[in-house]
Amino acid sequence: MAISRILIANRGEIALRIHRAAHEMGIETVAVHSTADADAMHVRLADHAVCIGPPPATDSYLNVANIISAAEIAGADAIHPGYGFLSENAKFAEIVEAHDIVWIGPKPEHIRTMGDKVQAKKTAGALGLPLVPGSDGAVSDVEEAKKIAAEIGYPVIIKAASGGGGRGMKVCEAEDKLETLMKQAGSEAKAAFGDATVYIEKYLGNPRHIEFQVFGDGRGGAIHLGERDCSLQRRHQKVLEEAPSPVISDEERAQMGEVCSKAMRDMAYRGAGTIEFLWENGEFYFIEMNTRLQVEHPVTEAITGMDLVREQIRIADGKDLSCTQDQIEFKGHAIECRINAEDPFTFAPSPGKVTHYHPAGGMHVRVDSGLYAGYSIPPYYDSMIAKLIVYGRSREKCIMRLKRALEEMVIEGVNHSVPLHEELLQQPDVLSGDYSIKWLEEWLKEREG
Amino acid sequence: MAISRILIANRGEIALRIHRAAHEMGIETVAVHSTADADAMHVRLADHAVCIGPPPATDSYLNVANIISAAEIAGADAIHPGYGFLSENAKFAEIVEAHDIVWIGPKPEHIRTMGDKVQAKKTAGALGLPLVPGSDGAVSDVEEAKKIAAEIGYPVIIKAASGGGGRGMKVCEAEDKLETLMKQAGSEAKAAFGDATVYIEKYLGNPRHIEFQVFGDGRGGAIHLGERDCSLQRRHQKVLEEAPSPVISDEERAQMGEVCSKAMRDMAYRGAGTIEFLWENGEFYFIEMNTRLQVEHPVTEAITGMDLVREQIRIADGKDLSCTQDQIEFKGHAIECRINAEDPFTFAPSPGKVTHYHPAGGMHVRVDSGLYAGYSIPPYYDSMIAKLIVYGRSREKCIMRLKRALEEMVIEGVNHSVPLHEELLQQPDVLSGDYSIKWLEEWLKEREG
Repeated sequence: MAISRILIANRGEIALRIHRAAHEMGIETVAVHSTADADAMHVRLADHAVCIGPPPATDSYLNVANIISAAEIAGADAIHPGYGFLSENAKFAEIVEAHDIVWIGPKPEHIRTMGDKVQAKKTAGALGLPLVPGSDGAVSDVEEAKKIAAEIGYPVIIKAASGGGGRGMKVCEAEDKLETLMKQAGSEAKAAFGDATVYIEKYLGNPRHIEFQVFGDGRGGAIHLGERDCSLQRRHQKVLEEAPSPVISDEERAQMGEVCSKAMRDMAYRGAGTIEFLWENGEFYFIEMNTRLQVEHPVTEAITGMDLVREQIRIADGKDLSCTQDQIEFKGHAIECRINAEDPFTFAPSPGKVTHYHPAGGMHVRVDSGLYAGYSIPPYYDSMIAKLIVYGRSREKCIMRLKRALEEMVIEGVNHSVPLHEELLQQPDVLSGDYSIKWLEEWLKEREG
Repeated sequence: MAISRILIANRGEIALRIHRAAHEMGIETVAVHSTADADAMHVRLADHAVCIGPPPATDSYLNVANIISAAEIAGADAIHPGYGFLSENAKFAEIVEAHDIVWIGPKPEHIRTMGDKVQAKKTAGALGLPLVPGSDGAVSDVEEAKKIAAEIGYPVIIKAASGGGGRGMKVCEAEDKLETLMKQAGSEAKAAFGDATVYIEKYLGNPRHIEFQVFGDGRGGAIHLGERDCSLQRRHQKVLEEAPSPVISDEERAQMGEVCSKAMRDMAYRGAGTIEFLWENGEFYFIEMNTRLQVEHPVTEAITGMDLVREQIRIADGKDLSCTQDQIEFKGHAIECRINAEDPFTFAPSPGKVTHYHPAGGMHVRVDSGLYAGYSIPPYYDSMIAKLIVYGRSREKCIMRLKRALEEMVIEGVNHSVPLHEELLQQPDVLSGDYSIKWLEEWLKEREG
């Protein structure tokens, strides 16, 4: 059942990324595109192109019927969904498979399970992934709350069961304040959500975002490719990612990686996945699992030498994992800067025509981007227009190389994030790797003055 | 004596290459340029720029006085000569050092010795590098010639001592023809050069060009970084280079590499060097040594992970080699395509304005080039405008990736070599690695029909 023609159900840099992997394997590509993306680079490079509708995405990149029709018209025997859009849509995966088209992604049931937050946590817990410890549901009795808090250790956080947005949330540092804070949280919750129910969790004051890349063969074989540190975030959007994490030792990587691999073996997980954790004081706490390729996958490629999209395609084609855990070597350091078409500091979107474009080049510098001079960035989609990925033998060398690569990037006609990254790479905390998921927003606030 | 500001006494992609390495080490750069190169990319990126005269190169890039003055004016404490121009000019190296400027290159006496063909061969022989076996000078006696030919083995070649251009040259396959051919060669030589003197050498019918990259610390320490196969040549100009060579085993690499390293240790060689050999039937024959960085150095960087320009700068700065031989690991395969501004098949130069430029990108693709959209390629210099270097885990994967990278390269406004490389990569001999230094010219002739 060798795959010979892949339909790429996505756009932008990831569509180009998939096209590249396919061509390097001798596989033809079918680009599907909205009317707004007719001039996109991956559309120009693909062997076949089919227009699947106008923007917004609901009428094209999210239009299942049009995509399936395009696959049938173009004779595609496989579909790669990229990230975003339909990549974590279990129903779409099922429809693809029902049409006898190879789905380059995990088994639909795993997409479904991990896409449901409650189910995902239950499954993760059952698979032995560490969760944020807390009350197993609502807590109303203060003595019970004290017992739980003593078990998980202070500080703890009291959260409204129906809540969100910080209301009904109280951080409690010590037992003598628990009763008062529970009452306050309860009344705030009642006022805000009409429900006074609260629960208790370990409070992570300053965690990092650390995620493990995994691959399963769908038959009980699985490996991990180490972690990525994606703590530099703004509004839950990753801005700069690195691998390995500055705070994870080789032993911790091997240990936590094995916990993740084992979970994947037990699930008989298929394809690429990412298990996301918060990390604080040496402890990991499961957040969620993404059952797809991540934007930041190239930093893993840089330090392992493995082509993750190729691996996805191989596995979808029924092949074994291309290597065993023992054969994976982590070498050097890699950092990815996401470059968006937006004001670097106000983050106001900046679509429009790119008048000049010149990516950085040279040794160990990779640019994944569909940009070219004369290209018009449409206003309808995600603002990410390029990823700059730099490798170095050490974190310090990687940073030095990244700085010189940023100096070389030319993107004219729109605002973009290069100046943000240049300024970030002058901050002592970034240089030393001393940052949590809160760092970037706090720094931006301070910077604004 | 830490280097803090390097003057780059070169132009084009290699000037940019040196600028990049310097900036990654936190070292400032001084670009010197001719009036024709004022808009060159490395001039724009360098921290300082000094115009050193008009084209042709004799009035600027070869003008020693102007370059030394520029170094003094700009406060450069080191000079990197790149390749070509003054890079193998021992006198220039001496003048640089006499001005208390660090010369990022080998010791002047080694440049001088290896720059003199006769001296170079003598030195190489004395250092244990294998030479083309033959008569040690003129042979007139047929019996003596037979003895020599029997020792070195047939076929042998009879060459005119004063000759060149093929005249007075005879290939002899067996002893019974030696006398006749010697007479013919002698009379041809007499007619062509007024001198009937001939000598005998082992005849290499179909050799490959294989060269070893070496580095010495100048104090008797030296390492090798394996070989590059540069057999695809036209008029002695390399067109496509790869590492490792398809015909060299790990054992042969280790063995010949050690022969080269030992020679460098015995010389107390300093900096980067390349020892070039012809290779046939498992035997190496020394041709010459280049006492500088080679154009094709990135293929070695790709398979070893070592930054060769950084290493040059470190060594010039008095530091030790950054690693021992044991620490060097050869991994995967790399190919470089030289892209020239010329007709891909007639090779007619094609300088002029580049209207569009888009380098290939993605995983394991490196482009070293000073091109940008709107740049005018001046007619005065070498026609090489870009190097595309691609890495893969195997030769086959490397070739597949190279093909897709070539598909992506956009250079408009001038003719260039991309179509030549695309066609080369369809030839079974190139795909199987079965080519000698004669292959490309023969193929071009056949192709012309």
